Amino acid sequence: LYYTAKHQVCHAATLKLDSSKWMSEPLTDLNTLEKNQNDMKCRVEAMIMRIQADVCHALEELEPEGDKFLVDKWHRAEGGGGVTCVLQDGVTFEKAGVNVSVVHGTLPPGAVQQMKSRGKNFKSQTLPFFAAGVSSVIHPRNPMVPTMHFNYRYFEVVDEGGKRIWWFGGGADLTPYYLDEKDAKHFHKTLKGACDKHDKGYYPRFKKWCDEYFFIKHRGMTRGVGGIFFDDIDEPSQDKCFKFVESCGDAIVPAYIPIVQKNKNSGYGYAERQWQLIRRGHYAEFNLIYDRGTKFGLQTPGARYESILMSLPLNAKWEYRHEPKPGSLEAKLTEVLKKPREWV
Amino acid sequence: LYYTAKHQVCHAATLKLDSSKWMSEPLTDLNTLEKNQNDMKCRVEAMIMRIQADVCHALEELEPEGDKFLVDKWHRAEGGGGVTCVLQDGVTFEKAGVNVSVVHGTLPPGAVQQMKSRGKNFKSQTLPFFAAGVSSVIHPRNPMVPTMHFNYRYFEVVDEGGKRIWWFGGGADLTPYYLDEKDAKHFHKTLKGACDKHDKGYYPRFKKWCDEYFFIKHRGMTRGVGGIFFDDIDEPSQDKCFKFVESCGDAIVPAYIPIVQKNKNSGYGYAERQWQLIRRGHYAEFNLIYDRGTKFGLQTPGARYESILMSLPLNAKWEYRHEPKPGSLEAKLTEVLKKPREWV
Repeated sequence: LYYTAKHQVCHAATLKLDSSKWMSEPLTDLNTLEKNQNDMKCRVEAMIMRIQADVCHALEELEPEGDKFLVDKWHRAEGGGGVTCVLQDGVTFEKAGVNVSVVHGTLPPGAVQQMKSRGKNFKSQTLPFFAAGVSSVIHPRNPMVPTMHFNYRYFEVVDEGGKRIWWFGGGADLTPYYLDEKDAKHFHKTLKGACDKHDKGYYPRFKKWCDEYFFIKHRGMTRGVGGIFFDDIDEPSQDKCFKFVESCGDAIVPAYIPIVQKNKNSGYGYAERQWQLIRRGHYAEFNLIYDRGTKFGLQTPGARYESILMSLPLNAKWEYRHEPKPGSLEAKLTEVLKKPREWV
Repeated sequence: LYYTAKHQVCHAATLKLDSSKWMSEPLTDLNTLEKNQNDMKCRVEAMIMRIQADVCHALEELEPEGDKFLVDKWHRAEGGGGVTCVLQDGVTFEKAGVNVSVVHGTLPPGAVQQMKSRGKNFKSQTLPFFAAGVSSVIHPRNPMVPTMHFNYRYFEVVDEGGKRIWWFGGGADLTPYYLDEKDAKHFHKTLKGACDKHDKGYYPRFKKWCDEYFFIKHRGMTRGVGGIFFDDIDEPSQDKCFKFVESCGDAIVPAYIPIVQKNKNSGYGYAERQWQLIRRGHYAEFNLIYDRGTKFGLQTPGARYESILMSLPLNAKWEYRHEPKPGSLEAKLTEVLKKPREWV
C-alpha cells in the first residue's frame, strides 16, 4: 500500500489469522495482513473479511437447495479492490449481497463533498484517502421476512497539513414488509447489547441517528424500523473504536438470522408480494436519492457500480398513488414508519 | 396570481381558448387565462393544457379495451398546483403519465442549487419563482415499443435587484429496448422538423445536448437513443421562444404515436420482457440519481411526490452483473447506448 508506506510507520506485529473460511483471499496479501495487525488498515481488513464470511455462511445455511454465494474478487485500477458476494434467486433469499471493499487513492471533489456533509471539513478539493468496509443488503423472497442492511467502515484521509485523520462509521437496520413487533424488538435488543458492552450512551444515540438517517424525506417516512447508525466515531481511542465496531459486526448474525428462520416458511399470497414490491421501490428510492454511501461510491473514480448497486432489490414496483387500505396490516406498518418507535 | 400582480403589468388581451378537450379545468381560472394571453405565464398554461390533452387522447386511442387516463387535479399549499394524468395497467401502456404543473412561491436553497447548475447564477439563497411545464413518461407494455419522455417548461424568477428573468427549457427522448433504426430515425426527423422551422442550428445543438444530458454516468451509456434537450432558452424573443417550444410540443404525437402503432402487436417472450425490466431499472437509476427535474421537484416545498415519481416504471429489475450475450440484439442496443449515433 503506497498509502501505508508514505503516511504511517508500521512495526512488525504478527498475529496468525484464520482465513480458512473467508470467501476469498483478502485484497492485501495474507502475510502482510498478519504482520501488520497493529496497523488499523490491516486490522480492519482482516475483521471485515471475517464478518463477510460469517454472514455469508449463516445465510447459505438457510438455503434448502444448497444455493451458494457467487464470489467476485475485483481490483480497482486507481488502488485497492473488493470481494463482492451475491446470492441471487435463491429459495430463501431473492437477492443477498455482502460486499467487502478496501480502496485507496485520491478522492475527487464530488466524493469529498459527500464526506463534508458527514461533519468533516476539508479545505482541499481532492484528498488522499483509504477506505475499507463491509456492506450488505439482504432481500428475502418471503414478504414475511424483513430486508436487512448493515455496513461497517473505516476511513483515513490526509489533510492539507499532512495530518492523518481516521474515523469509523456504520450501522444496521431492518425493513419489514409486515410488522412483527417481537422481531423488531429482538433486532434492536441484540444491537443494543453490542453497543452497551462499550458505552451505555451509544445505543440511544445511534438508534435516533438511524431513524434520522434512513428517512425517505419526500414520503415523510423512515425506510424501516431502524436499528443503529453512526459516523465520525474517533473516540475514546482507535483500539476501542475498533472493538466497538467489531462487536456490532458480530451482532449481525444473532440479530437477523433467527428472524429469517422464524418467518421464512410463513404463508403469503399475491397481495403480500405486491406490497413487498411496492416497498422495495421505496427502498430503491432511498438508496438512489439519499444514501450517502451510494453517492460516495458512484462518485469515487473507478468505482465498481455493480457492487454499489448490489443493494437494489431484484424486483421493484411503482404504482401511481398506491395507498394501503385503512386498518390493514400494510397501513399499520406505514404508521410506524411515519412515527418511529422505541423498541427496547 | 400574487406573482403576476406584483412583478408584471398585464394588459387585457382576450383570446378565446378552446378548452373543451382539456383533461381538466386549468389551474388558473379559464376567464383569467383568456384575458391575459399577452402574459407569458397564462399563454404557457393554456399551451401545456392543450398539449397534455392532445397526447393523452392520442394514447387513449391506442388502448383496445378503452382504458382511459385517471385525472388528478391537485393544489399546492405554497402556491399553484397541477393536473396529473396517469394510465396504468392498460393493454398497450403499462404506465403512462402526462403531468401539467403550474407552481409559484419561493424556492429553497436546495432547489436554487439545481437551477444554478443550469447556468443561472443567483446570489440569494431563496428566490421568488414561477414554473409551468408539461412532462410525460410513457412506458408501453410490449418490449418492442420504446419508452418515450418529453418535458417542456417555462420559468420566471425575480433576482435580488427585483429584475424578472425568464427562460424556457425542454426536450424529448426515446428509450428503445430493441433497436429499430427506422423508428429512431423517424423520431429524430420529426423533432428536427419542429426545430428547423425556427432555427436550423437548434437540432444539431439540442441533439448533442440530449445525448450529454441523458447519460447514465456510472454505466457509461446514454438512457436511450436521445432526441432533443435544451435549457436556458431566452433568445431571440419571448414570443419566438414560445413558438419554438410549442412546435416541439406539437411534434410529440407525430414523432411517437406511429412507432407505438407499428410495434404494439409485435411478438415477444419471457427473455424480451426480462430485458425490458432490466432496462427499466436503468431508467429508474437515471431519474433518481441524475435527473435535475426530479431533484428540483423533490426539493420544492410542498411538492406532490406522486406526480414527480410518476416517471418511474411500473416494474423494474436489478440483476447483479447482468450482461447481454455478445452478438445479441440486447448487445447491439447497448453498443449504440455507449456510442451515440447521428440519426438524420
